[in-house]
Amino acid sequence: MLSTTQTYDNGTLLADYTLTRQASLALSDMLVNEDFGLQAMTEVSPPKWHLAHTTWFFETFILKPFAPKYRVFHPQFEYLFNSYYNGVGAQFPRSRRNLLSRPTVEDVFNYRKHVDAAMEPLLAMYDHKERAVISQRCELGIHHEQQHQELFCTDIKYCFSLNPLYPALGRDNTPVVTTGLPKLVFLEIDAMDTTVGYQGEDFYFDNEVPAHQFHQSGFRFANRLVTNEYLEFMHSGGYDTAAYWLSDGWVWQQSTQACQPLYWTQQEGKWFEYTLHGLIELDPYLPVAHVNYYEADAFARWSGKRLPLEQEWEIACQYFKQVPEPKAITLHPRPLVGNKEIYHMFHQLWQWTSSNYSPYPGYRPSAGAIGEYNGKFMCNQMVMRGSSCVTPSKHARLTYRNFFYPRDQWQFTGIRLADDQ
Amino acid sequence: MLSTTQTYDNGTLLADYTLTRQASLALSDMLVNEDFGLQAMTEVSPPKWHLAHTTWFFETFILKPFAPKYRVFHPQFEYLFNSYYNGVGAQFPRSRRNLLSRPTVEDVFNYRKHVDAAMEPLLAMYDHKERAVISQRCELGIHHEQQHQELFCTDIKYCFSLNPLYPALGRDNTPVVTTGLPKLVFLEIDAMDTTVGYQGEDFYFDNEVPAHQFHQSGFRFANRLVTNEYLEFMHSGGYDTAAYWLSDGWVWQQSTQACQPLYWTQQEGKWFEYTLHGLIELDPYLPVAHVNYYEADAFARWSGKRLPLEQEWEIACQYFKQVPEPKAITLHPRPLVGNKEIYHMFHQLWQWTSSNYSPYPGYRPSAGAIGEYNGKFMCNQMVMRGSSCVTPSKHARLTYRNFFYPRDQWQFTGIRLADDQ
Amino acid sequence: MLSTTQTYDNGTLLADYTLTRQASLALSDMLVNEDFGLQAMTEVSPPKWHLAHTTWFFETFILKPFAPKYRVFHPQFEYLFNSYYNGVGAQFPRSRRNLLSRPTVEDVFNYRKHVDAAMEPLLAMYDHKERAVISQRCELGIHHEQQHQELFCTDIKYCFSLNPLYPALGRDNTPVVTTGLPKLVFLEIDAMDTTVGYQGEDFYFDNEVPAHQFHQSGFRFANRLVTNEYLEFMHSGGYDTAAYWLSDGWVWQQSTQACQPLYWTQQEGKWFEYTLHGLIELDPYLPVAHVNYYEADAFARWSGKRLPLEQEWEIACQYFKQVPEPKAITLHPRPLVGNKEIYHMFHQLWQWTSSNYSPYPGYRPSAGAIGEYNGKFMCNQMVMRGSSCVTPSKHARLTYRNFFYPRDQWQFTGIRLADDQ
Amino acid sequence: MLSTTQTYDNGTLLADYTLTRQASLALSDMLVNEDFGLQAMTEVSPPKWHLAHTTWFFETFILKPFAPKYRVFHPQFEYLFNSYYNGVGAQFPRSRRNLLSRPTVEDVFNYRKHVDAAMEPLLAMYDHKERAVISQRCELGIHHEQQHQELFCTDIKYCFSLNPLYPALGRDNTPVVTTGLPKLVFLEIDAMDTTVGYQGEDFYFDNEVPAHQFHQSGFRFANRLVTNEYLEFMHSGGYDTAAYWLSDGWVWQQSTQACQPLYWTQQEGKWFEYTLHGLIELDPYLPVAHVNYYEADAFARWSGKRLPLEQEWEIACQYFKQVPEPKAITLHPRPLVGNKEIYHMFHQLWQWTSSNYSPYPGYRPSAGAIGEYNGKFMCNQMVMRGSSCVTPSKHARLTYRNFFYPRDQWQFTGIRLADDQ
Repeated sequence: MLSTTQTYDNGTLLADYTLTRQASLALSDMLVNEDFGLQAMTEVSPPKWHLAHTTWFFETFILKPFAPKYRVFHPQFEYLFNSYYNGVGAQFPRSRRNLLSRPTVEDVFNYRKHVDAAMEPLLAMYDHKERAVISQRCELGIHHEQQHQELFCTDIKYCFSLNPLYPALGRDNTPVVTTGLPKLVFLEIDAMDTTVGYQGEDFYFDNEVPAHQFHQSGFRFANRLVTNEYLEFMHSGGYDTAAYWLSDGWVWQQSTQACQPLYWTQQEGKWFEYTLHGLIELDPYLPVAHVNYYEADAFARWSGKRLPLEQEWEIACQYFKQVPEPKAITLHPRPLVGNKEIYHMFHQLWQWTSSNYSPYPGYRPSAGAIGEYNGKFMCNQMVMRGSSCVTPSKHARLTYRNFFYPRDQWQFTGIRLADDQ
Repeated sequence: MLSTTQTYDNGTLLADYTLTRQASLALSDMLVNEDFGLQAMTEVSPPKWHLAHTTWFFETFILKPFAPKYRVFHPQFEYLFNSYYNGVGAQFPRSRRNLLSRPTVEDVFNYRKHVDAAMEPLLAMYDHKERAVISQRCELGIHHEQQHQELFCTDIKYCFSLNPLYPALGRDNTPVVTTGLPKLVFLEIDAMDTTVGYQGEDFYFDNEVPAHQFHQSGFRFANRLVTNEYLEFMHSGGYDTAAYWLSDGWVWQQSTQACQPLYWTQQEGKWFEYTLHGLIELDPYLPVAHVNYYEADAFARWSGKRLPLEQEWEIACQYFKQVPEPKAITLHPRPLVGNKEIYHMFHQLWQWTSSNYSPYPGYRPSAGAIGEYNGKFMCNQMVMRGSSCVTPSKHARLTYRNFFYPRDQWQFTGIRLADDQ
Repeated sequence: MLSTTQTYDNGTLLADYTLTRQASLALSDMLVNEDFGLQAMTEVSPPKWHLAHTTWFFETFILKPFAPKYRVFHPQFEYLFNSYYNGVGAQFPRSRRNLLSRPTVEDVFNYRKHVDAAMEPLLAMYDHKERAVISQRCELGIHHEQQHQELFCTDIKYCFSLNPLYPALGRDNTPVVTTGLPKLVFLEIDAMDTTVGYQGEDFYFDNEVPAHQFHQSGFRFANRLVTNEYLEFMHSGGYDTAAYWLSDGWVWQQSTQACQPLYWTQQEGKWFEYTLHGLIELDPYLPVAHVNYYEADAFARWSGKRLPLEQEWEIACQYFKQVPEPKAITLHPRPLVGNKEIYHMFHQLWQWTSSNYSPYPGYRPSAGAIGEYNGKFMCNQMVMRGSSCVTPSKHARLTYRNFFYPRDQWQFTGIRLADDQ
Repeated sequence: MLSTTQTYDNGTLLADYTLTRQASLALSDMLVNEDFGLQAMTEVSPPKWHLAHTTWFFETFILKPFAPKYRVFHPQFEYLFNSYYNGVGAQFPRSRRNLLSRPTVEDVFNYRKHVDAAMEPLLAMYDHKERAVISQRCELGIHHEQQHQELFCTDIKYCFSLNPLYPALGRDNTPVVTTGLPKLVFLEIDAMDTTVGYQGEDFYFDNEVPAHQFHQSGFRFANRLVTNEYLEFMHSGGYDTAAYWLSDGWVWQQSTQACQPLYWTQQEGKWFEYTLHGLIELDPYLPVAHVNYYEADAFARWSGKRLPLEQEWEIACQYFKQVPEPKAITLHPRPLVGNKEIYHMFHQLWQWTSSNYSPYPGYRPSAGAIGEYNGKFMCNQMVMRGSSCVTPSKHARLTYRNFFYPRDQWQFTGIRLADDQ
């Protein structure tokens, strides 16, 4: 959660702030007014709430402490748009965010303008005596808003999927043309002593450090994600065979009676997948999306393989010199292009690892409310690596640790297989 | 649910249809776009859904069977806006109505216009060979829409109440001035053999008939509703004393820890009540509102009285010659005016009776889906009599039987006491 | 709950007390020690608890107030074996009664002996200055224990039914031989003004009075219970057709996926019924048992009839001069015998009526904790009339009002049809 | 789960079998018949079930495949006493084990005798052609039964604790005398590259291997467990301060309103702890017991420390040359004795580690149903190290990995603190 950068370039920071704030508005342009209040389950938030909460973050952690003449936009917004920072105060119940028809969408856009109007001059005060902290927190706020841009897309997809009219977020509903698929190959990586965790000079979240020594056994790593070939697992009785499932996964399957990925539906014998482009026929060449950890693990067991450790993912990524390219959000994974050694490491789907989300050795969260950003979630969740098609450009990173509960399906998740050497 | 009227005046029917449809739009004018999707619990529906469902009723039961050239507005609306008519087909899950951001509010207004444009000429075809059925069903549809106008207000009040900004529905937030209160008196009515149930020539719901003989013992009937003097019950430990409560009421109290009427809240030692005018300080002269059956019954027991039977309510109403006056919806009960023998029978608050909602002797529901209107709910619910401040003009009736579950608090309900002679 | 009898014959009372207490022990003889703790759902109680609670009743309401030298058996039994008398004090949570491995079965038998040893001399003190109250409460305690003897059988049946070994309570597992079935006939009874409720000099529960005038329309009443011909309802899709069901009944069916009476099971194409004699093949001539109100009502609707009012049941019983004969508990209904006008009114199965369990006009519960016996349950439950095969001899009565929730299946319940004339 | 030992000494195996089987009977001697059916929550099993299931294990995995003339004791026991082995077949629902009043306790003892009578000659057939597998599985079955002996005590404690009579398991209720407490000291261990996991020739469970390289940073390790000094955490508002809690821990605290260890209760200002000796006054010198992971973690955070990794526990144990001594089950932890460098590593309380229960690198479960023993539980659970006062002698081991959910309190768990160097 903390950049170590004390020397952030002043102009770049303001520019990044402005671009990030504009990117949220660009996403909003794809919605109609009625969409902004949708919250189909407790875990998702309404688009309007994302827009307000990211603004609240700047107001709470920067403007209130460091902009002395700042007047809060509304006295109750501190309560309404606090997500989970107990150190800041009580929170409006998460499950009821969809009840906030007021403030209206317009009110929230005005809130954003109000905060931007205060942030911009503050960011231009290069000689502010708290400049270092302001820069650091602003950078964190930018990355925080990028996370919520991803959630904006992820959450609205879940809400739309329960509407029988299957709304599309994007205006371009042209199906993607796919032309084939490289064979699934397992790449060999030998045992090594190495270092994992973030080691650079740019931004990172606090859960990526300290970088630390790690002994890695030799392993094999799939050259691409599992595609909708996942159908074979289903057809061979994968969801009905206890032997493939973790004990808790089997309990999940038995209680939900799930028998396919979250957004799949069968109509007149054909399989369809709900996407942010609307309902489309299942494309066998695209990666399988929206499986939870239990499904990913069961699939791996069925195929005689396993999921990778998060360290294996990081080591493989470095070994094959994969770096995230700048890339605009797309609403669905894209087909494979080219003739490469390894595919899909970034900007397609988050990849479940078999690693629990635990602190790295020597990890210490920041003091105060801002320390609640990552540390308190280090229990019961699994690490996902890479990034997805709805991750904003520049938000992906080699050492990035995303985390969700094993039962969660609504994230843009996929399956990367691995094996022992 | 069925008027027996075969000779409804033609012009009146169309005029009533038009007025009723306009009244729904007038209510909608008090909302902002974001409000139309609110649904804070399964039992309430979003305003948009009420507007669409009442339209669906005319489309399904009149236009589809009797207007041969009618083209449905949208093929999936039959499914989306069916409330509970299994005879028509499957229904979109009730608890998810707030997820329908599409169709938009504008789409629903267009749906209303589309149906009105087909209804109006049909209602003007006085020689249609199914004229009698069309008239009957149109009249039913009008009363159905009036019921939903009441629910529109009732439901949005519940949703707004959970927003810490306490939005007001009305624009006029001037508190009502009250000037005093007549003493609570119990009026005597001697035993009699009489007839209860609807016996006239105008509209009635099928649950109000057959009119039938009934032997009534002598009883005593309160001259007005219980006011916010209800506070005395609370202060004397009413919510903590099992002896005042029905067994199921006590279970409800213990599990919810309820200790005041639904919309009451205490701030810095003062009691406030959320109303559709916003949060106002508790007025001791206004009737206590939004108590459920268990609370009403416990209050009655605490005060050494009981709730009336529905027959007692009807007999008292006739005995004191109370009839509902035409009266526009108001957003909250009004203070007592004048010097009358009996008050509050209509257009203040629905009055819990100790009568279960059961069929009258000889009751038979209509055939087909339309027979689901009332009959299938005759189990587990209690009858409420009178009408409330949000009941549309002309919708109240001496023999009207409203019904809700004993636990329900969000209706505009009040307490009328009675006693044995 | 109260006999008005002030002149109970002294010797008879002690004899009845002793016989009733022995009858509980006779039931206990059919169990092994491990059975005494079974409680398969909150609504049922372990046999041991029934034995202790009925003893507690005498201790609490007679010995403690009226036997000055009485020493309580154990100081915590007041708490452990109080069922629901808030006026006596707090109660050990109902759902945890199966956790009381201590006191042991032997302890409870000793508790019974201790209380009997104090009751017997007290009942022999004909000149006790509180003799009238003691007699009255003792008579109530006797009928209370008879109720629990019935529940003893009813509850253990439910618990045993969930054991795949299908234990038998009785030692005699010989199947009953049935030889045919009288045709289902509807007997006509014309409209009348009459009196319903208890009017005699013997024991009655307080919910059976005051006797009061009632106007009864003409009706038709089935000559026997519905038998396992109920299978036809199942085969014709009864459980899948919403039109037959009350709204709450349909919710029950959809959520439980129930599709047959509680104790029925199909094995290799044949239907079996779990009984207290063990699992037996379904006998088409025996009455269908263990249906809830929703099922009974749906069956009636499917067959074009309805369930009777409780007044209709009482009037029919009087009209055809049916009186309960002394009869030992049997573990299952018995086949029809003879050539009678009407069958099954008593000692076969409780018969669901369409009457809610409400107070009779002018009803007032007793003062104090003993007033909690019946009155506080007069909400949300339906009246059943008659008695069942496990009702103790002399406990059945023309005016007896049994009551359970519409969803309850585990009582010995059956279906009596009726119709309008 | 599998010993690699092919050369188990023949006589020792039979002797161990016999001793282990007798030890279960010795525990049973402390119960009365009524206790054998207790199951107060799904996660615990009745004593009778433990006795039958451990017998089922030998019958299923040894007698059925390898003793050709073996006749099963009862055809339905395969179903009734299967815990979770989907590979063997369906299982009687876990939450209903307390409903099996039949088979009786005596039946189960006879089942045990029946299986012992078949096992003993089989174990004496040293030349059986499957001798190796039989030995291996028998050894596993012995350790399996030892695990259930521990659960026998753990589970009955939970059940007894809900009985207001607070039964004692043991006959000796003399309180333990404690005389003081060594100061809490943090012992230093420097960074090292080492190997963790089982490496010997004796029995181990499959989750303890493969032994593998591990880089350990320098750390500090508490010399003893946290005692009932835990009270200070409570008194300083530990349960009310979100900042000390993991996010999921705070959700647990808020939803359960837990504010003390599981078995603590306050009476007239004094703290008591329910133990298997009955309710005793809280002893400040004994280790705090029955806290869950969330509580242990919150306590550690409050004290400025952290919980150890499982590797740290294992390394510290080796470093200080701690080995488990043979020691009979005691019903509660014992006071500290002597003047040692480090205390409590074994036979007091299981010690929560911050390590998720995950497979060691290269881990592969066995084929077939027996492979379900450990592997499928490697998700959502935390590793506990050491052993407890109710762990049977010879069952404790340096590399032993016990595992439970973070919310679980009913195990004999305690808190070992650690810190970064």
